[in-house]
Amino acid sequence: MTNKKKRILGIDPGLAIVGYGCIEVSGNRMRPVEYGVIRTGPEDDLAVRLALIYDGCAALFSRLAPDEAAVEELFFGRNVTTGMTVSHARGVILLSLRQHGIHLCEYTPMVVKRTVTGDGRADKVSVQAMVQRLLGLGSVPQPDDAADGLALAICHAQHSPLAALLGERKGPAVKRPKKQGT
Amino acid sequence: MTNKKKRILGIDPGLAIVGYGCIEVSGNRMRPVEYGVIRTGPEDDLAVRLALIYDGCAALFSRLAPDEAAVEELFFGRNVTTGMTVSHARGVILLSLRQHGIHLCEYTPMVVKRTVTGDGRADKVSVQAMVQRLLGLGSVPQPDDAADGLALAICHAQHSPLAALLGERKGPAVKRPKKQGT
Repeated sequence: MTNKKKRILGIDPGLAIVGYGCIEVSGNRMRPVEYGVIRTGPEDDLAVRLALIYDGCAALFSRLAPDEAAVEELFFGRNVTTGMTVSHARGVILLSLRQHGIHLCEYTPMVVKRTVTGDGRADKVSVQAMVQRLLGLGSVPQPDDAADGLALAICHAQHSPLAALLGERKGPAVKRPKKQGT
Repeated sequence: MTNKKKRILGIDPGLAIVGYGCIEVSGNRMRPVEYGVIRTGPEDDLAVRLALIYDGCAALFSRLAPDEAAVEELFFGRNVTTGMTVSHARGVILLSLRQHGIHLCEYTPMVVKRTVTGDGRADKVSVQAMVQRLLGLGSVPQPDDAADGLALAICHAQHSPLAALLGERKGPAVKRPKKQGT
């Protein structure tokens, strides 16, 4: 746990909207860098929308140059179709992270809520209020998907120092993908 | 419906194994060009496996230069986890097809079986036997995933002349994604 600055990018995958939030962490201080969304429209074929997400991610990852990324782990107990559609987009996002050599961790919505608010069942408004407070933002970050991206980044900032510490003792607790040609 | 040669690539998506089969169609004649699989191992992270599939597809599409592709439409009524995992890989495959400007159609396993054997509930062995017979192969194509790729290509060869014909009358029945920078 050093005071070296680290950029963390949180990503909330989706086909119509990919939410993202980037923060800079130094010791136990966090500051917002940028947040927003990548949108695709239903008028386009699935393959076209995936290409838009891929190109959008590539531009984003190059511009923000995050050290690490936190991606929401999907859970669709009932809506299989939605789960499979979002997974197409998520595959493209993970591919792009890999091609940019960005270390990624995955967190379930419950872990994110618990880490950010102390309550794994917290509602959206409570999570957004805590994101605003923790990052000292003048207003609640909008849209929801961008706020979710920031919440993921905050969640990872809280978890990664512990993971790094454990990693010094018994190998990396947070797996870092091996380098490979992009 | 002309006698111009057309190359069709059938793709059976998966994370551990992507099966493919390429055929050349001229009028109502079909001949096999190549079939095989792209494999990834469980020892690698999901993002690494997706990158291997992406790189494998890029090499394959460049080498075979198919005019059109037929990709299996996923249906996982019960196993949501498997459906979501395969969808990650499928997203990367659709992205690569799009980047190579290859027109794609999707077919459910039932349509493929019905088109190839006449029975939508045909078993694997019957489908493979018909694939072998229709393409005049010396033996049953192996592994199963490659045979599935060939079956998808044959299915598309049977459907696309009709779709093209309908397209001449009332717009494309088979949607062709709009061109976009690769």
